[in-house]
Amino acid sequence: MANGDRIWRNARLATLDPGRDGLGEIGDGALAVRDGTILFAGPRADLPGELAGGADVVDCGGRWITPGLVDCHTHLVHAGNRAKEFQMRLAGASYEEIARAGGGIVSTVASVRAASEDDLVRESLPRLEALMGEGVTTVEVKSGYGLTVEDEVKMLRAARRLGERGVTVMTSYLGAHAVPADYRGRNDAFIDEVVILGLEAAHADGIVDAVDGFCEGIAFSPEEIARVFDAAARLGLPVRLHADQLSDLAGGALAARYGALSADHLEYLSDDGAAAMARAGTVAVLLPGAYYFLRETRKPPVAALREHGTRIAIATDNNPGTSPLTSPLLTMNMAATLFGLTVEECIAGITREAARALGRLDRIGTLEPGKAADFCLWDIAEPAELVYRIGFNPLHARVYRGHADAAGKGRP
Amino acid sequence: MANGDRIWRNARLATLDPGRDGLGEIGDGALAVRDGTILFAGPRADLPGELAGGADVVDCGGRWITPGLVDCHTHLVHAGNRAKEFQMRLAGASYEEIARAGGGIVSTVASVRAASEDDLVRESLPRLEALMGEGVTTVEVKSGYGLTVEDEVKMLRAARRLGERGVTVMTSYLGAHAVPADYRGRNDAFIDEVVILGLEAAHADGIVDAVDGFCEGIAFSPEEIARVFDAAARLGLPVRLHADQLSDLAGGALAARYGALSADHLEYLSDDGAAAMARAGTVAVLLPGAYYFLRETRKPPVAALREHGTRIAIATDNNPGTSPLTSPLLTMNMAATLFGLTVEECIAGITREAARALGRLDRIGTLEPGKAADFCLWDIAEPAELVYRIGFNPLHARVYRGHADAAGKGRP
Ligand SMILES: [Zn+2]
Ligand SMILES: [Zn+2]
Repeated sequence: MANGDRIWRNARLATLDPGRDGLGEIGDGALAVRDGTILFAGPRADLPGELAGGADVVDCGGRWITPGLVDCHTHLVHAGNRAKEFQMRLAGASYEEIARAGGGIVSTVASVRAASEDDLVRESLPRLEALMGEGVTTVEVKSGYGLTVEDEVKMLRAARRLGERGVTVMTSYLGAHAVPADYRGRNDAFIDEVVILGLEAAHADGIVDAVDGFCEGIAFSPEEIARVFDAAARLGLPVRLHADQLSDLAGGALAARYGALSADHLEYLSDDGAAAMARAGTVAVLLPGAYYFLRETRKPPVAALREHGTRIAIATDNNPGTSPLTSPLLTMNMAATLFGLTVEECIAGITREAARALGRLDRIGTLEPGKAADFCLWDIAEPAELVYRIGFNPLHARVYRGHADAAGKGRP
Repeated sequence: MANGDRIWRNARLATLDPGRDGLGEIGDGALAVRDGTILFAGPRADLPGELAGGADVVDCGGRWITPGLVDCHTHLVHAGNRAKEFQMRLAGASYEEIARAGGGIVSTVASVRAASEDDLVRESLPRLEALMGEGVTTVEVKSGYGLTVEDEVKMLRAARRLGERGVTVMTSYLGAHAVPADYRGRNDAFIDEVVILGLEAAHADGIVDAVDGFCEGIAFSPEEIARVFDAAARLGLPVRLHADQLSDLAGGALAARYGALSADHLEYLSDDGAAAMARAGTVAVLLPGAYYFLRETRKPPVAALREHGTRIAIATDNNPGTSPLTSPLLTMNMAATLFGLTVEECIAGITREAARALGRLDRIGTLEPGKAADFCLWDIAEPAELVYRIGFNPLHARVYRGHADAAGKGRP
């Protein structure tokens, strides 16, 4: 075995290998890594002899190893926060009073426009570190608070720079997030002059991995989103969609029609929508943090998703207005407690299925040979503990591309 | 000023001083500490000259300082966990199936009885460290999973030992938590032979700070609880009560009649109960973690508590069966999001009012001269951020009795 190779052994593995049952558990497991890639993941007894000699060996003390966590829906690059607005709302202020006080998404847009790219990186870093501190190795980050060509590009540049810090950042261009005041009532002009031009500029910069939109009565219609998706198709970019969160606009079906990687939120998704998504391979990304923070009562149709075989992922939706959540572990607990997902669905939803929602299942999301050596060692007796506890972090070590870092409580 | 004295300055203070409005905020504040006690807390300009010279000075860089957090209701000393039961429930198992599989409180009782005092300390420590890592400087810990004289005493001994680790532990004897199988249908015998004898034994050991009980259809009747409270009165011990969580047994009024420090849970508290508690000075301790985990829909009567002027505290209720929550910050967010408490009520509820619920307001819970120098430095722009964020820890440093420790992200 080559110099620099490393083997983690005396571990229990939750491989999430779809070829195995459940979480793909292996009781006495070993992982072998070369150059940041998994060479072997399986029962220790099956570790090929040629890998056993010459490598560094890490004794995991019987700890559990899962794939690195994948947070596949965030708006974590932003400036400012909305704590004041939260405080006003609890004190009984109406939405009008909050709007008059400068609250709502316009306050975040103003903060982001006023921020430099460096400011955005600096302000977003503690949130990223919170995710990494609980085992996140890949995170999706959206634009959508700039709403000018320059400011949308600035957000995605900041997101790319966060990807230089021992974590993979996948970007989604979300110009079609909200209509700014100067375009009110002129959605088509906004799409032409800002959303599509901004997308082309950002794509020319090489900073767009996918294109997103917000399909809702308070945002963009299905027809408007379709124009954005057509532009994405011309550029060869995959799409995803904020769909059916507050009302049923058949957003899930729209996403499926465009072969979207995912449709997200989905509280009002119809049965037909769930079936269309299953057929198209469009992943349902559920966001319990927003459901919780907004005190919603209508849950996404989990039974229909299961029945049709639609894939289910979960994510933090980290954003300042409706989900100031930076804990992937709590996201799992909320998905179980609030939506009734099983332990297995929660863990798969923030590893394998989240990787699928990002179009990266070839490279991340499970512990299989050929995939990136992104994984977590946990101080737990069984995987269910990751979902069961509330506000407790049992991460022992986070390994990114084969290297353990200080995000966890210690090194293996 | 004497050697060893220390001044924290360039800080914004949320003193929680009841003589000041709101959170008792001071914009350019200073704290002076001698021998673990606050000598001065107020505007820097008012710092007496004789304190300014000779002391160590810590520049807080404009950070906010609050009193150390007080978690006034926990069952954190226990063994084992109930993750398996949680997993079964999500997978559709009935309570009967879970009981047949050994789940429920009996599983925790069996684990605690099988554990040594050392085991209990070792298993409970990570939970305690999680609380301390978010700024807790005082924590209440109950017995109640032993349900024999020896095992109840063992639990409180373990709790006392946790108090040797840079945090104040206040113990509550909760022998009247559940009726074990060998006493089923013989509640009075259990109270005589275990609850009261155990209380006397633990009190003789000096390990009881207060006496608690669980007044509920599935536990003990008001009459049975009254017998336990009478025993507490004979020993001169204050009482508290798990009351009106699942039904209205007038538990709040019972607690008030005995001058209890607190009545806790209170989802079914009546208006009369709230009034009686206000008159008696009995604090209402709300436990949003249990409400969340059990998916309850009936909220405690916050409007009635406010109307009658009943004091409101909040706590994690950390326990393996109904609230595996170890985050005081998330407790604040849940109290706001789920119960509608204001930012001020949440912060006061886990500092000043929690100290009142423990009968220790003379010594902790606010930043005032003469009180213990227990406080937290936070990386926040305003106190509302402590309540607004979900699963994010902005603790910069925790100071216990004047000494900063490593629980936070750094030292001041
Ligand atoms: Zn979103
Ligand atoms: Zn309790």
